[in-house]
Amino acid sequence: MTETDTQPDPWTGGPAVILVRPQMGENIGAAARAMFNFGLTELRLTAPRDGWPNEAALAMAAGAEDVARAAEVFDDLPGAIADLSYVVATTARGRDMAKPVFSPSDAARELRRRHASGEKVGMLFGAERSGLSNDDVALADAVVTIPANPAYSSLNLGQAVLLLSYEWMRSGAAPELPQTGRGEAAPAIKAELVGLFEHLEEALVRSGFLGIKEKRPAMVRNLRAMLGRAELTDQEVRTLRGIIVSLERYGKPPETEGK
Amino acid sequence: MTETDTQPDPWTGGPAVILVRPQMGENIGAAARAMFNFGLTELRLTAPRDGWPNEAALAMAAGAEDVARAAEVFDDLPGAIADLSYVVATTARGRDMAKPVFSPSDAARELRRRHASGEKVGMLFGAERSGLSNDDVALADAVVTIPANPAYSSLNLGQAVLLLSYEWMRSGAAPELPQTGRGEAAPAIKAELVGLFEHLEEALVRSGFLGIKEKRPAMVRNLRAMLGRAELTDQEVRTLRGIIVSLERYGKPPETEGK
Repeated sequence: MTETDTQPDPWTGGPAVILVRPQMGENIGAAARAMFNFGLTELRLTAPRDGWPNEAALAMAAGAEDVARAAEVFDDLPGAIADLSYVVATTARGRDMAKPVFSPSDAARELRRRHASGEKVGMLFGAERSGLSNDDVALADAVVTIPANPAYSSLNLGQAVLLLSYEWMRSGAAPELPQTGRGEAAPAIKAELVGLFEHLEEALVRSGFLGIKEKRPAMVRNLRAMLGRAELTDQEVRTLRGIIVSLERYGKPPETEGK
Repeated sequence: MTETDTQPDPWTGGPAVILVRPQMGENIGAAARAMFNFGLTELRLTAPRDGWPNEAALAMAAGAEDVARAAEVFDDLPGAIADLSYVVATTARGRDMAKPVFSPSDAARELRRRHASGEKVGMLFGAERSGLSNDDVALADAVVTIPANPAYSSLNLGQAVLLLSYEWMRSGAAPELPQTGRGEAAPAIKAELVGLFEHLEEALVRSGFLGIKEKRPAMVRNLRAMLGRAELTDQEVRTLRGIIVSLERYGKPPETEGK
Protein backbone atom coordinates (compact mmCIF):
# COMPACT_ATOMS: atom_id res chain seq x y z
CA MET A 1 0.00 0.00 0.00
CA THR A 2 1.51 3.29 -1.00
CA GLU A 3 1.38 6.33 1.17
CA THR A 4 -1.19 7.87 -1.14
CA ASP A 5 -3.61 5.05 -0.46
CA THR A 6 -3.69 5.88 3.22
CA GLN A 7 -4.63 9.51 2.61
CA PRO A 8 -8.40 9.93 2.68
CA ASP A 9 -9.85 12.11 -0.04
CA PRO A 10 -10.02 15.52 1.66
CA TRP A 11 -13.46 16.18 0.16
CA THR A 12 -15.30 13.10 1.35
CA GLY A 13 -16.07 11.66 4.73
CA GLY A 14 -14.94 13.51 7.79
CA PRO A 15 -16.61 14.23 11.11
CA ALA A 16 -20.36 14.14 11.59
CA VAL A 17 -21.81 17.56 12.47
CA ILE A 18 -24.38 17.21 15.25
CA LEU A 19 -26.75 20.11 15.92
CA VAL A 20 -28.24 19.71 19.39
CA ARG A 21 -31.86 20.96 19.69
CA PRO A 22 -31.56 23.47 16.83
CA GLN A 23 -34.36 26.04 16.61
CA MET A 24 -34.57 27.96 13.32
CA GLY A 25 -34.70 25.95 10.11
CA GLU A 26 -32.66 28.71 8.45
CA ASN A 27 -29.77 27.99 10.76
CA ILE A 28 -29.89 24.28 9.99
CA GLY A 29 -29.74 25.15 6.29
CA ALA A 30 -26.85 27.57 6.88
CA ALA A 31 -25.00 24.83 8.78
CA ALA A 32 -25.50 22.42 5.86
CA ARG A 33 -24.02 24.97 3.47
CA ALA A 34 -21.08 25.75 5.72
CA MET A 35 -20.28 22.05 6.14
CA PHE A 36 -20.48 21.34 2.45
CA ASN A 37 -18.30 24.36 1.64
CA PHE A 38 -15.50 22.45 3.30
CA GLY A 39 -16.43 18.96 2.23
CA LEU A 40 -18.41 17.69 5.24
CA THR A 41 -21.64 15.89 4.40
CA GLU A 42 -22.88 14.03 7.46
CA LEU A 43 -25.44 16.14 9.35
CA ARG A 44 -27.30 14.90 12.44
CA LEU A 45 -30.01 16.71 14.41
CA THR A 46 -31.33 16.05 17.87
CA ALA A 47 -34.90 17.13 18.57
CA PRO A 48 -35.18 20.01 16.07
CA ARG A 49 -37.72 22.47 17.52
CA ASP A 50 -39.76 22.88 14.34
CA GLY A 51 -39.71 19.23 13.28
CA TRP A 52 -38.11 17.66 10.25
CA PRO A 53 -38.01 17.91 7.29
CA ASN A 54 -38.14 21.70 7.39
CA GLU A 55 -38.85 23.86 4.34
CA ALA A 56 -36.87 26.85 5.62
CA ALA A 57 -33.83 24.67 6.14
CA LEU A 58 -33.99 23.26 2.61
CA ALA A 59 -34.46 26.72 1.11
CA MET A 60 -31.47 28.12 3.01
CA ALA A 61 -29.31 25.14 2.10
CA ALA A 62 -29.34 26.19 -1.57
CA GLY A 63 -26.66 24.18 -3.31
CA ALA A 64 -26.21 21.92 -0.29
CA GLU A 65 -29.78 20.54 -0.23
CA ASP A 66 -28.45 17.00 -0.48
CA VAL A 67 -26.62 17.45 2.80
CA ALA A 68 -29.73 18.86 4.48
CA ARG A 69 -32.03 16.20 3.01
CA ALA A 70 -29.78 13.41 4.21
CA ALA A 71 -29.78 14.74 7.79
CA GLU A 72 -30.53 12.05 10.39
CA VAL A 73 -32.80 12.99 13.27
CA PHE A 74 -32.40 11.59 16.79
CA ASP A 75 -34.42 12.01 19.96
CA ASP A 76 -31.45 12.89 22.09
CA LEU A 77 -27.71 13.37 22.07
CA PRO A 78 -26.74 9.92 23.38
CA GLY A 79 -28.58 8.42 20.42
CA ALA A 80 -27.01 10.85 17.95
CA ILE A 81 -23.45 10.00 18.95
CA ALA A 82 -23.94 6.31 19.72
CA ASP A 83 -21.78 5.07 16.83
CA LEU A 84 -19.01 7.65 17.22
CA SER A 85 -15.87 7.11 19.23
CA TYR A 86 -14.73 10.71 19.72
CA VAL A 87 -16.68 13.98 19.76
CA VAL A 88 -15.76 17.56 20.51
CA ALA A 89 -18.23 20.10 21.95
CA THR A 90 -18.17 23.64 20.59
CA THR A 91 -18.79 26.19 23.32
CA ALA A 92 -18.56 29.95 23.57
CA ARG A 93 -16.53 29.80 26.76
CA GLY A 94 -14.51 27.05 28.35
CA ARG A 95 -16.53 25.00 30.85
CA ASP A 96 -15.23 24.08 34.22
CA MET A 97 -14.95 20.42 33.36
CA ALA A 98 -12.09 18.03 33.46
CA LYS A 99 -11.75 17.84 29.69
CA PRO A 100 -9.17 19.04 27.23
CA VAL A 101 -9.98 22.50 25.83
CA PHE A 102 -8.87 22.95 22.25
CA SER A 103 -8.64 25.82 19.82
CA PRO A 104 -10.49 25.10 16.57
CA SER A 105 -7.26 24.26 14.76
CA ASP A 106 -6.05 21.91 17.50
CA ALA A 107 -9.47 20.25 17.65
CA ALA A 108 -9.40 19.76 13.88
CA ARG A 109 -5.97 18.20 14.05
CA GLU A 110 -7.10 15.79 16.74
CA LEU A 111 -10.25 14.88 14.78
CA ARG A 112 -8.16 14.40 11.66
CA ARG A 113 -5.66 12.17 13.42
CA ARG A 114 -8.40 9.92 14.77
CA HIS A 115 -10.36 9.93 11.51
CA ALA A 116 -7.23 8.88 9.63
CA SER A 117 -6.92 5.94 12.05
CA GLY A 118 -10.41 4.80 11.15
CA GLU A 119 -12.32 6.25 14.12
CA LYS A 120 -15.76 7.75 13.59
CA VAL A 121 -15.70 11.26 15.00
CA GLY A 122 -18.08 14.21 15.40
CA MET A 123 -18.49 17.87 16.33
CA LEU A 124 -21.36 19.07 18.56
CA PHE A 125 -23.03 22.47 18.26
CA GLY A 126 -25.64 23.75 20.70
CA ALA A 127 -28.92 25.56 20.18
CA GLU A 128 -28.89 29.16 18.97
CA ARG A 129 -29.33 30.96 22.29
CA SER A 130 -28.58 28.46 25.00
CA GLY A 131 -25.71 26.57 23.47
CA LEU A 132 -24.81 23.14 24.77
CA SER A 133 -25.94 22.20 28.27
CA ASN A 134 -23.47 20.91 30.81
CA ASP A 135 -24.99 17.47 30.32
CA ASP A 136 -24.31 17.70 26.59
CA VAL A 137 -20.72 18.76 27.18
CA ALA A 138 -20.28 15.94 29.68
CA LEU A 139 -20.85 13.47 26.82
CA ALA A 140 -18.04 14.95 24.75
CA ASP A 141 -14.38 14.03 24.86
CA ALA A 142 -13.09 17.57 24.52
CA VAL A 143 -14.28 21.17 24.40
CA VAL A 144 -13.52 23.56 21.53
CA THR A 145 -13.71 27.29 22.09
CA ILE A 146 -13.49 29.80 19.30
CA PRO A 147 -11.27 32.64 20.52
CA ALA A 148 -13.35 35.67 19.52
CA ASN A 149 -13.32 39.34 20.55
CA PRO A 150 -14.17 39.37 24.28
CA ALA A 151 -16.30 42.45 23.64
CA TYR A 152 -18.37 40.68 20.98
CA SER A 153 -17.96 36.94 20.94
CA SER A 154 -21.42 35.83 19.80
CA LEU A 155 -21.14 33.71 16.69
CA ASN A 156 -24.28 32.31 15.16
CA LEU A 157 -24.71 28.61 14.52
CA GLY A 158 -23.85 28.79 10.82
CA GLN A 159 -20.69 30.78 11.55
CA ALA A 160 -19.51 28.35 14.23
CA VAL A 161 -20.07 25.41 11.87
CA LEU A 162 -18.28 27.33 9.12
CA LEU A 163 -15.16 27.95 11.22
CA LEU A 164 -14.90 24.39 12.48
CA SER A 165 -15.50 22.98 8.99
CA TYR A 166 -12.88 25.35 7.62
CA GLU A 167 -10.39 24.14 10.22
CA TRP A 168 -11.24 20.53 9.33
CA MET A 169 -10.38 21.28 5.72
CA ARG A 170 -7.19 23.09 6.75
CA SER A 171 -6.07 20.19 8.89
CA GLY A 172 -6.04 17.95 5.83
CA ALA A 173 -4.41 20.34 3.43
CA ALA A 174 -0.90 19.73 2.29
CA PRO A 175 1.42 22.42 3.60
CA GLU A 176 0.56 25.49 1.60
CA LEU A 177 3.32 27.04 -0.38
CA PRO A 178 2.90 30.62 -1.41
CA GLN A 179 2.94 30.70 -5.18
CA THR A 180 4.12 33.51 -7.29
CA GLY A 181 0.94 33.71 -9.34
CA ARG A 182 2.89 34.23 -12.52
CA GLY A 183 1.32 31.24 -14.16
CA GLU A 184 3.46 29.66 -16.81
CA ALA A 185 5.72 32.64 -17.27
CA ALA A 186 9.37 31.89 -16.75
CA PRO A 187 11.36 34.14 -14.46
CA ALA A 188 13.93 36.14 -16.35
CA ILE A 189 17.45 34.79 -16.29
CA LYS A 190 20.09 37.12 -14.94
CA ALA A 191 21.50 37.89 -18.39
CA GLU A 192 18.13 39.27 -19.47
CA LEU A 193 17.91 41.30 -16.29
CA VAL A 194 21.37 42.78 -16.73
CA GLY A 195 20.47 43.59 -20.34
CA LEU A 196 17.48 45.55 -19.05
CA PHE A 197 19.55 47.32 -16.39
CA GLU A 198 22.19 48.41 -18.90
CA HIS A 199 19.61 49.49 -21.45
CA LEU A 200 17.85 51.66 -18.84
CA GLU A 201 21.08 53.10 -17.50
CA GLU A 202 22.37 54.04 -20.95
CA ALA A 203 19.07 55.75 -21.74
CA LEU A 204 19.22 57.64 -18.45
CA VAL A 205 22.77 58.78 -19.09
CA ARG A 206 21.62 60.09 -22.48
CA SER A 207 18.62 61.85 -21.00
CA GLY A 208 20.66 63.40 -18.22
CA PHE A 209 18.93 61.62 -15.35
CA LEU A 210 22.21 59.87 -14.56
CA GLY A 211 24.17 62.89 -15.69
CA ILE A 212 26.12 63.50 -12.48
CA LYS A 213 28.88 60.94 -12.70
CA GLU A 214 29.71 60.82 -8.98
CA LYS A 215 26.14 59.96 -8.03
CA ARG A 216 25.76 57.36 -10.73
CA PRO A 217 26.98 54.19 -8.93
CA ALA A 218 24.63 54.61 -5.96
CA MET A 219 21.67 55.49 -8.18
CA VAL A 220 22.33 52.52 -10.42
CA ARG A 221 22.48 50.22 -7.41
CA ASN A 222 19.16 51.52 -6.13
CA LEU A 223 17.48 51.13 -9.52
CA ARG A 224 18.76 47.57 -9.84
CA ALA A 225 17.61 46.67 -6.35
CA MET A 226 14.14 48.08 -7.04
CA LEU A 227 13.71 46.23 -10.35
CA GLY A 228 15.26 43.10 -8.88
CA ARG A 229 12.61 42.96 -6.18
CA ALA A 230 9.85 42.67 -8.78
CA GLU A 231 11.08 39.20 -9.82
CA LEU A 232 10.40 39.97 -13.45
CA THR A 233 9.54 37.38 -16.06
CA ASP A 234 11.35 37.34 -19.38
CA GLN A 235 8.23 38.77 -21.04
CA GLU A 236 8.15 41.60 -18.52
CA VAL A 237 11.78 42.41 -19.20
CA ARG A 238 10.93 42.75 -22.90
CA THR A 239 7.95 44.95 -22.03
CA LEU A 240 10.08 47.26 -19.91
CA ARG A 241 12.70 47.53 -22.65
CA GLY A 242 9.92 48.40 -25.09
CA ILE A 243 8.76 51.13 -22.71
CA ILE A 244 12.24 52.62 -22.50
CA VAL A 245 12.55 52.70 -26.29
CA SER A 246 9.08 54.17 -26.67
CA LEU A 247 9.54 56.94 -24.11
CA GLU A 248 13.02 57.80 -25.32
CA ARG A 249 12.17 57.85 -28.98
CA TYR A 250 8.58 59.06 -29.11
CA GLY A 251 8.05 60.66 -25.74
CA LYS A 252 6.46 64.09 -25.76
CA PRO A 253 6.38 66.21 -22.65
CA PRO A 254 2.79 67.09 -21.83
CA GLU A 255 3.38 70.82 -22.49
CA THR A 256 4.08 70.23 -26.15
CA GLU A 257 1.37 67.63 -26.53
CA GLY A 258 0.37 66.53 -29.93
CA LYS A 259 1.58 63.67 -31.98
CA MET B 1 10.58 50.26 26.28
CA THR B 2 9.62 46.73 27.27
CA GLU B 3 8.76 44.09 24.78
CA THR B 4 5.14 44.32 25.79
CA ASP B 5 5.01 47.94 24.70
CA THR B 6 5.82 46.95 21.14
CA GLN B 7 3.06 44.36 20.88
CA PRO B 8 -0.13 45.88 19.50
CA ASP B 9 -3.32 45.03 21.36
CA PRO B 10 -4.74 42.10 19.37
CA TRP B 11 -8.27 43.46 19.71
CA THR B 12 -7.74 46.95 18.33
CA GLY B 13 -6.57 48.28 15.01
CA GLY B 14 -5.81 45.80 12.30
CA PRO B 15 -6.55 45.81 8.60
CA ALA B 16 -9.28 47.91 7.03
CA VAL B 17 -12.01 45.77 5.46
CA ILE B 18 -13.00 47.22 2.08
CA LEU B 19 -16.23 46.02 0.46
CA VAL B 20 -16.14 46.86 -3.23
CA ARG B 21 -19.55 47.76 -4.70
CA PRO B 22 -21.56 45.76 -2.12
CA GLN B 23 -25.20 45.17 -2.99
CA MET B 24 -27.39 43.96 -0.09
CA GLY B 25 -27.37 45.99 3.10
CA GLU B 26 -27.80 42.74 5.03
CA ASN B 27 -24.45 41.55 3.76
CA ILE B 28 -22.75 44.77 4.79
CA GLY B 29 -24.21 44.29 8.27
CA ALA B 30 -23.09 40.65 8.34
CA ALA B 31 -19.59 41.76 7.34
CA ALA B 32 -19.54 44.31 10.19
CA ARG B 33 -20.48 41.58 12.67
CA ALA B 34 -17.93 39.13 11.33
CA MET B 35 -15.17 41.74 11.52
CA PHE B 36 -16.06 42.76 15.04
CA ASN B 37 -16.22 39.11 16.17
CA PHE B 38 -12.48 39.05 15.61
CA GLY B 39 -11.66 42.58 16.65
CA LEU B 40 -11.61 44.43 13.33
CA THR B 41 -13.40 47.78 13.31
CA GLU B 42 -12.43 49.73 10.20
CA LEU B 43 -15.02 49.21 7.46
CA ARG B 44 -14.88 50.97 4.10
CA LEU B 45 -17.38 50.77 1.25
CA THR B 46 -17.02 51.74 -2.37
CA ALA B 47 -20.21 52.70 -4.18
CA PRO B 48 -22.73 50.66 -2.15
CA ARG B 49 -25.61 49.85 -4.51
CA ASP B 50 -28.39 50.93 -2.15
CA GLY B 51 -26.68 54.03 -0.80
CA TRP B 52 -25.46 54.72 2.70
CA PRO B 53 -26.42 54.75 5.54
CA ASN B 54 -28.57 51.67 5.05
CA GLU B 55 -31.22 50.52 7.52
CA ALA B 56 -30.93 46.84 6.61
CA ALA B 57 -27.20 46.95 7.23
CA LEU B 58 -27.61 48.51 10.66
CA ALA B 59 -30.33 46.02 11.63
CA MET B 60 -28.19 43.06 10.60
CA ALA B 61 -25.12 44.46 12.35
CA ALA B 62 -26.82 43.90 15.74
CA GLY B 63 -24.14 44.30 18.37
CA ALA B 64 -21.66 45.66 15.86
CA GLU B 65 -23.67 48.73 14.87
CA ASP B 66 -20.78 51.00 15.83
CA VAL B 67 -18.60 49.33 13.21
CA ALA B 68 -21.32 49.69 10.56
CA ARG B 69 -22.11 53.29 11.53
CA ALA B 70 -18.46 54.30 11.30
CA ALA B 71 -18.11 52.85 7.78
CA GLU B 72 -16.48 55.25 5.36
CA VAL B 73 -17.89 55.47 1.84
CA PHE B 74 -15.76 56.11 -1.25
CA ASP B 75 -16.60 56.60 -4.92
CA ASP B 76 -14.08 54.08 -6.13
CA LEU B 77 -11.42 51.64 -5.04
CA PRO B 78 -8.38 53.87 -5.64
CA GLY B 79 -9.94 56.38 -3.23
CA ALA B 80 -10.77 53.72 -0.67
CA ILE B 81 -7.21 52.39 -0.48
CA ALA B 82 -5.35 55.66 -1.04
CA ASP B 83 -3.81 55.77 2.45
CA LEU B 84 -2.95 52.06 2.65
CA SER B 85 0.40 50.59 1.69
CA TYR B 86 -0.54 46.92 1.29
CA VAL B 87 -3.83 45.28 0.38
CA VAL B 88 -4.88 41.72 -0.38
CA ALA B 89 -7.76 40.85 -2.72
CA THR B 90 -10.07 37.98 -1.77
CA THR B 91 -11.09 35.97 -4.81
CA ALA B 92 -12.90 32.68 -5.34
CA ARG B 93 -10.28 31.44 -7.78
CA GLY B 94 -6.73 32.48 -8.43
CA ARG B 95 -6.44 35.02 -11.22
CA ASP B 96 -3.90 34.75 -13.91
CA MET B 97 -2.00 37.77 -12.70
CA ALA B 98 1.55 38.20 -11.69
CA LYS B 99 0.85 38.47 -7.97
CA PRO B 100 1.47 36.26 -4.98
CA VAL B 101 -1.44 33.94 -4.19
CA PHE B 102 -1.91 33.31 -0.49
CA SER B 103 -4.01 31.00 1.61
CA PRO B 104 -6.05 32.92 4.22
CA SER B 105 -3.59 32.03 6.97
CA ASP B 106 -0.54 33.06 4.96
CA ALA B 107 -2.29 36.30 3.96
CA ALA B 108 -3.11 37.03 7.59
CA ARG B 109 0.49 36.42 8.60
CA GLU B 110 1.72 38.80 5.93
CA LEU B 111 -0.83 41.47 6.93
CA ARG B 112 0.13 40.99 10.57
CA ARG B 113 3.84 41.32 9.85
CA ARG B 114 3.32 44.57 7.97
CA HIS B 115 0.82 45.91 10.48
CA ALA B 116 3.34 45.24 13.26
CA SER B 117 5.87 47.31 11.30
CA GLY B 118 3.49 50.25 11.27
CA GLU B 119 2.09 49.83 7.76
CA LYS B 120 -1.58 50.53 7.08
CA VAL B 121 -3.04 47.44 5.44
CA GLY B 122 -6.39 46.26 4.08
CA MET B 123 -8.43 43.36 2.74
CA LEU B 124 -10.66 43.71 -0.36
CA PHE B 125 -13.92 41.82 -0.87
CA GLY B 126 -15.93 41.97 -4.08
CA ALA B 127 -19.65 42.28 -4.70
CA GLU B 128 -21.93 39.37 -3.88
CA ARG B 129 -22.28 37.83 -7.31
CA SER B 130 -19.56 39.27 -9.44
CA GLY B 131 -16.68 39.43 -6.97
CA LEU B 132 -13.72 41.67 -7.65
CA SER B 133 -13.03 42.76 -11.21
CA ASN B 134 -9.63 42.24 -12.77
CA ASP B 135 -9.05 45.97 -12.45
CA ASP B 136 -9.79 45.76 -8.72
CA VAL B 137 -7.38 42.86 -8.31
CA ALA B 138 -4.72 44.73 -10.28
CA LEU B 139 -4.65 47.36 -7.51
CA ALA B 140 -3.92 44.76 -4.83
CA ASP B 141 -0.53 43.47 -3.75
CA ALA B 142 -1.59 39.86 -3.40
CA VAL B 143 -4.52 37.55 -3.97
CA VAL B 144 -6.12 35.41 -1.25
CA THR B 145 -8.11 32.36 -2.20
CA ILE B 146 -10.15 30.39 0.31
CA PRO B 147 -9.59 26.69 -0.46
CA ALA B 148 -13.16 25.40 -0.38
CA ASN B 149 -14.84 22.24 -1.67
CA PRO B 150 -14.41 22.32 -5.46
CA ALA B 151 -17.96 20.97 -5.77
CA TYR B 152 -19.41 23.82 -3.70
CA SER B 153 -17.06 26.70 -3.20
CA SER B 154 -19.51 29.61 -3.04
CA LEU B 155 -19.05 31.52 0.19
CA ASN B 156 -21.21 34.54 0.84
CA LEU B 157 -19.72 37.92 1.65
CA GLY B 158 -20.23 37.64 5.40
CA GLN B 159 -18.62 34.20 5.47
CA ALA B 160 -15.59 35.34 3.49
CA VAL B 161 -15.13 38.31 5.82
CA LEU B 162 -15.58 35.97 8.80
CA LEU B 163 -12.86 33.57 7.68
CA LEU B 164 -10.34 36.29 6.88
CA SER B 165 -11.08 38.11 10.15
CA TYR B 166 -10.71 34.82 12.03
CA GLU B 167 -7.35 34.24 10.39
CA TRP B 168 -6.31 37.79 11.30
CA MET B 169 -7.10 37.00 14.94
CA ARG B 170 -5.27 33.69 14.72
CA SER B 171 -2.20 35.33 13.22
CA GLY B 172 -1.88 37.48 16.34
CA ALA B 173 -1.82 34.52 18.69
CA ALA B 174 1.90 33.98 18.23
CA PRO B 175 4.44 36.77 18.56
CA GLU B 176 5.36 38.24 15.23
CA LEU B 177 8.67 39.79 14.33
CA PRO B 178 8.34 42.88 12.21
CA GLN B 179 10.76 42.85 9.32
CA THR B 180 10.61 45.08 6.32
CA GLY B 181 13.80 44.19 4.47
CA ARG B 182 13.79 47.72 3.10
CA GLY B 183 15.67 49.33 5.95
CA GLU B 184 14.02 52.45 7.25
CA ALA B 185 12.26 53.40 4.02
CA ALA B 186 8.50 53.71 4.22
CA PRO B 187 6.46 51.75 1.69
CA ALA B 188 4.54 53.93 -0.73
CA ILE B 189 0.88 54.42 0.03
CA LYS B 190 -1.60 53.49 -2.70
CA ALA B 191 -2.29 57.10 -3.68
CA GLU B 192 1.39 57.53 -4.57
CA LEU B 193 1.41 54.25 -6.44
CA VAL B 194 -1.72 55.10 -8.43
CA GLY B 195 -0.15 58.49 -9.20
CA LEU B 196 2.86 56.68 -10.64
CA PHE B 197 0.69 54.25 -12.63
CA GLU B 198 -1.33 57.08 -14.15
CA HIS B 199 1.73 59.14 -14.91
CA LEU B 200 3.38 56.21 -16.70
CA GLU B 201 0.22 55.26 -18.56
CA GLU B 202 -0.35 58.81 -19.80
CA ALA B 203 3.23 59.03 -21.00
CA LEU B 204 2.85 55.70 -22.80
CA VAL B 205 -0.35 56.80 -24.47
CA ARG B 206 1.47 59.92 -25.70
CA SER B 207 4.44 57.89 -26.94
CA GLY B 208 2.22 55.38 -28.69
CA PHE B 209 3.25 52.37 -26.58
CA LEU B 210 -0.33 52.17 -25.35
CA GLY B 211 -1.64 53.41 -28.67
CA ILE B 212 -3.91 50.47 -29.47
CA LYS B 213 -6.94 51.20 -27.36
CA GLU B 214 -8.32 47.64 -27.28
CA LYS B 215 -5.11 46.26 -25.88
CA ARG B 216 -4.72 48.99 -23.31
CA PRO B 217 -6.67 47.54 -20.33
CA ALA B 218 -4.75 44.25 -20.29
CA MET B 219 -1.41 45.98 -20.78
CA VAL B 220 -2.17 48.46 -18.00
CA ARG B 221 -3.10 45.63 -15.65
CA ASN B 222 0.13 43.81 -16.41
CA LEU B 223 2.22 46.93 -15.87
CA ARG B 224 0.49 47.62 -12.57
CA ALA B 225 0.97 44.04 -11.41
CA MET B 226 4.64 44.17 -12.30
CA LEU B 227 5.33 47.47 -10.53
CA GLY B 228 3.13 46.44 -7.63
CA ARG B 229 5.29 43.42 -6.98
CA ALA B 230 8.34 45.58 -6.38
CA GLU B 231 6.77 46.96 -3.17
CA LEU B 232 8.14 50.40 -3.93
CA THR B 233 8.99 52.94 -1.26
CA ASP B 234 7.74 56.50 -1.60
CA GLN B 235 11.26 57.60 -2.58
CA GLU B 236 11.36 54.95 -5.30
CA VAL B 237 8.01 56.13 -6.65
CA ARG B 238 9.47 59.63 -6.95
CA THR B 239 12.56 58.23 -8.66
CA LEU B 240 10.49 56.33 -11.22
CA ARG B 241 8.38 59.39 -11.94
CA GLY B 242 11.60 61.35 -12.45
CA ILE B 243 12.77 58.69 -14.89
CA ILE B 244 9.55 58.91 -16.88
CA VAL B 245 9.84 62.71 -17.11
CA SER B 246 13.49 62.50 -18.04
CA LEU B 247 13.04 59.88 -20.78
CA GLU B 248 9.95 61.56 -22.17
CA ARG B 249 11.38 65.05 -22.21
CA TYR B 250 15.06 64.58 -22.84
CA GLY B 251 15.29 61.08 -24.25
CA LYS B 252 17.34 60.72 -27.42
CA PRO B 253 17.29 57.53 -29.40
CA PRO B 254 20.81 56.11 -29.71
CA GLU B 255 20.85 56.57 -33.48
CA THR B 256 20.64 60.34 -33.15
CA GLU B 257 23.03 60.46 -30.20
CA GLY B 258 24.73 63.69 -29.39
CA LYS B 259 24.05 66.69 -27.20
